Amino acid sequence: MTEAFTILSDTRVFGGSLKRVRHPSAALDCAMTFAVYLPPQVEAGAPGQTPVPVLYWLSGLTCTDENFTQKAGAFRVAAELGLAIVAPDTSPRGEGVPGDPDGAWDFGLGAGFYVDATEQPWAKHYRMHDYVTRELPELVEANFPVTDRRSIAGHSMGGHGALVCALRHPGRYKAVSAFSPIVNPAAVPWGEKAFGRYLGPDRDRWLEWDACALIAKATERLPILIDQGDRDSFLETQLKPQALVVAAEAVGHPVTLRMQPGYDHSYFFIATFIEDHLRHHAAALTA
Amino acid sequence: MTEAFTILSDTRVFGGSLKRVRHPSAALDCAMTFAVYLPPQVEAGAPGQTPVPVLYWLSGLTCTDENFTQKAGAFRVAAELGLAIVAPDTSPRGEGVPGDPDGAWDFGLGAGFYVDATEQPWAKHYRMHDYVTRELPELVEANFPVTDRRSIAGHSMGGHGALVCALRHPGRYKAVSAFSPIVNPAAVPWGEKAFGRYLGPDRDRWLEWDACALIAKATERLPILIDQGDRDSFLETQLKPQALVVAAEAVGHPVTLRMQPGYDHSYFFIATFIEDHLRHHAAALTA
Repeated sequence: MTEAFTILSDTRVFGGSLKRVRHPSAALDCAMTFAVYLPPQVEAGAPGQTPVPVLYWLSGLTCTDENFTQKAGAFRVAAELGLAIVAPDTSPRGEGVPGDPDGAWDFGLGAGFYVDATEQPWAKHYRMHDYVTRELPELVEANFPVTDRRSIAGHSMGGHGALVCALRHPGRYKAVSAFSPIVNPAAVPWGEKAFGRYLGPDRDRWLEWDACALIAKATERLPILIDQGDRDSFLETQLKPQALVVAAEAVGHPVTLRMQPGYDHSYFFIATFIEDHLRHHAAALTA
Repeated sequence: MTEAFTILSDTRVFGGSLKRVRHPSAALDCAMTFAVYLPPQVEAGAPGQTPVPVLYWLSGLTCTDENFTQKAGAFRVAAELGLAIVAPDTSPRGEGVPGDPDGAWDFGLGAGFYVDATEQPWAKHYRMHDYVTRELPELVEANFPVTDRRSIAGHSMGGHGALVCALRHPGRYKAVSAFSPIVNPAAVPWGEKAFGRYLGPDRDRWLEWDACALIAKATERLPILIDQGDRDSFLETQLKPQALVVAAEAVGHPVTLRMQPGYDHSYFFIATFIEDHLRHHAAALTA
């Protein structure tokens, strides 16, 4: 099904094109904006044009589609590898979409946590998991020159999102990776606040959205690549990637955690290592 | 002379470090912030450490030091080439610094045009040319592990700045290049507004700050590299790079103007071609 959408802008980058797209989302019951980078291989007039696979990038708290597109420096290598990249927003937005009652930046607007909320008043709009795993790929695959070969990656809250999306949907993604992910949201302050509101007080239900819990019962052993800066100010309180390594080792799930000395939580860290992630994804997507 | 300065932040990027520095500027009579990227070759503990040359990057209208550092994707290649990069702000700022009376974005704050103003109330603070060609290099060379081998580049208003700085100071820079420069500010609306206020109504004096005029009497024939997008919305009204090519040809000054099909005025354009510029600069700086 092709939904209505509007191209807000179309910018040439590294021989390809970066489009910002606005569309009505049924899953989120609001209008949404996402970015899609199409590499030179599928530009109009490119010889022998064949559709390309897609990497979905999930951003962190407070971000929109623009943080990744402007700061990650990903398009040079995406152009080389013939990879499309789709970067959605991090929450529903707009009139009628409730945000944090106290105006905090770690819940609500810009902080959808890639779950499907069950509690009011959040359940009407906060269904980012359904959006990024189902509705958005349907729209992208129906309207752009891409295949249904997908992979997923993200940063911080989006790293959590990428891991959970891949672990909940065996076969849907060919590769997964994360920068500075919240691997155990059910056990850290950011996750406790968000899950308590979106999902309610029953902590057992939180585990359906927690990578450390999901990996224990995963039926597909998709290798996970994680980069983490050792000077990240959120490392000890919110991220704790070692918890995922322990959970993965218990079940033999392949996880590569690279602790990067001196790096922090910023997009400067992501820019430094994004090439490795893109090559990790391309190897699986084009295999 | 070592002036007082404060390191606001120090971020690891591509094995080097990006520092934001705050210091009192005598030239501008206010406090200023600039960014300096130091490549891995001069990081603390790097073996056989020797000082590195410096590229100065001048940004365009409305920018601060952060646009280039966050969006240009320059540090990967700077790290490879062993190049420091210094990115100053685009105007004096702070309490007591007058901005545009109408709050416009093309004059005053964020729009210093890299001239030394002679008219009131601008002359007290708006001396960006003296700042970027003299005071800032003095501070950088006294306090960071860099040599006095310098080059200069910039974008739009900063492309104008880079060309004028190089043309006015033979021998001071080993290389110069520009993205989408305002090559003939004395003859376009942005320049007429800024020069009329900063320099007064005598148009002859404007020519001392106009690359097309300066190139005619240059005593040094430093090759100029220019990239320009052909879908840049400012191309025909404000930029007109062909005017510089004509002025350069008349005197045998080497100018390479590369018209890049499909590209606009944004940092996505800069990111696409910054590697070529960095290699152009490094070849001259390390020759």
